Amino acid sequence: MTGTIDARLASLGIVLPDAPAPAANYVPFVQSGTLVFISGQVAQGPDGFLTGKVGAEIDIPTAQNAARACGLALLAQLRAACGGDLDRVVRVVKLTGFVNATPDFTEHPAVINGSSDLMAEVFGPAGAHARAAVGAGSLPFNVQVEIEGIFEIA
Amino acid sequence: MTGTIDARLASLGIVLPDAPAPAANYVPFVQSGTLVFISGQVAQGPDGFLTGKVGAEIDIPTAQNAARACGLALLAQLRAACGGDLDRVVRVVKLTGFVNATPDFTEHPAVINGSSDLMAEVFGPAGAHARAAVGAGSLPFNVQVEIEGIFEIA
Amino acid sequence: MTGTIDARLASLGIVLPDAPAPAANYVPFVQSGTLVFISGQVAQGPDGFLTGKVGAEIDIPTAQNAARACGLALLAQLRAACGGDLDRVVRVVKLTGFVNATPDFTEHPAVINGSSDLMAEVFGPAGAHARAAVGAGSLPFNVQVEIEGIFEIA
Repeated sequence: MTGTIDARLASLGIVLPDAPAPAANYVPFVQSGTLVFISGQVAQGPDGFLTGKVGAEIDIPTAQNAARACGLALLAQLRAACGGDLDRVVRVVKLTGFVNATPDFTEHPAVINGSSDLMAEVFGPAGAHARAAVGAGSLPFNVQVEIEGIFEIA
Repeated sequence: MTGTIDARLASLGIVLPDAPAPAANYVPFVQSGTLVFISGQVAQGPDGFLTGKVGAEIDIPTAQNAARACGLALLAQLRAACGGDLDRVVRVVKLTGFVNATPDFTEHPAVINGSSDLMAEVFGPAGAHARAAVGAGSLPFNVQVEIEGIFEIA
Repeated sequence: MTGTIDARLASLGIVLPDAPAPAANYVPFVQSGTLVFISGQVAQGPDGFLTGKVGAEIDIPTAQNAARACGLALLAQLRAACGGDLDRVVRVVKLTGFVNATPDFTEHPAVINGSSDLMAEVFGPAGAHARAAVGAGSLPFNVQVEIEGIFEIA
C-alpha cells in the first residue's frame, strides 16, 4: 500500500498490530451504510494483555499507553474494514473509552487521550471525534482500558 | 406470522417474551434511517429481575443465562420495531453488554456470549455483530446484565 | 432566534449554558449523515462540576438534577451542531447515561430521567428516545453523572 494514511503511519513510525481476533462469539466490525462499528478493543501489547487497576497499581502514563494500544487495534480493524485502504476513512466519528479504575479515580479524559491523540496524529482534522470516557467497575481479562469506535468510510 | 425467522425461532423452541415496558421516561426503540437503536434491556425472567453481583454470588453460567434473557428482550423489541416481521432484519450491527460484576471479575466476554450466541442461532450470518462487553459498577434493580443493541432493518 | 424550540425553551424558563469545551483532545460533536453524535457531557453547574457518589453522599433528587444539567449541556452542544437552529432537530435518538454510583445502587433509571424528562419537555414527541442507564465505577472529575447522545437533524 502507498496510500496517504499509510505514508503518514510510516512517517510516524507506527506499525499497526495484526487485527486482534474477537474474544468471543462476535465479529471485529460491522459496516452499515457508511458507518463502521468496531468492537471494543482491549489493551494489549506484544507480550499480552495490559492489565491492572488504574488509580491503584497503574499510573496515568501507563494507562495512556494502554489507551494508545487500544487505538492501534482500532486502526488495525479499521484497515481491515476498508479492505486495506485507510484512505477511505472519511471521519473518526466517535470513541467510547472505558477505564478499569478505582472508585475514586478522576482522570479518565487524560487516559483516553492516549487513543484520541493517535487519531489526530494519523488522520489530522478527520481524526477529530466525539468521545465519552467513563470508569468501568471491571474489564475483560483485567485490562486497563477498552475502547470501541464508530467511523465513517467512503 | 409465518416468516423465516419466526419459523427458526419455533424450531429452536424459543418463545419471545412480551416486549418489556421501559423502566422510565423513554421508549423501547427509535428508528433513524435503516438503523434501529434499542434501549438497554435489563435481565428478567418470568419471575422478575435476575439480580446479583457476577463474580460474587452469581457464577458465569447463571450470568450467561441472564445475558440470553437480555437478548430475548432485545428480539422482542426488535420484532415490535419491525412491525412484527423479523424477516425485515438485515443485520445485527452492535451489542453493548454491561455486566454487574465485582471489581476483580474478568470473564465479561463469556457472559455476554449468552446474548451473542442467541443472535447467531436466530439470524445466522446476519446475526454476526460488533460488540463491547464491560463491567458496570452497578446496574438498575441490581440486575446481573444489561444489553443495548443497534440493528439494521429493511 | 425565534424558532419554535427556542420559544418553548423560553416558555419553560430554560436558559441553555454555553456549550462546554471538551475536557481533552476531542470535539463536542460529529455529524455523519443525518446523525449527530454528541460527546459525553459531565454534570456541571454555574459553580463547577457536580461531584459525589450517588447512593452514598448524593441522594436521588440531587443526582436527577445533575442528569438534567448533563441534558442542558447536550442541548447546548446540539444547538451548536444545528448552527443555532434547534428547529432542525428531527428526533432525540438515543441517550446513554452513566451514574457514578456505589456498587449497591439500583435507581439509575430514576436518576437519568432528569435528562430524559428535559428532552420530553423541550421536544415533545420528538424527544422520546431510546436509552441505556448504567452504573459507572468512577467518572471524570468525580461527577455524579455523564450522558452522551445521538440526535437526528434535518
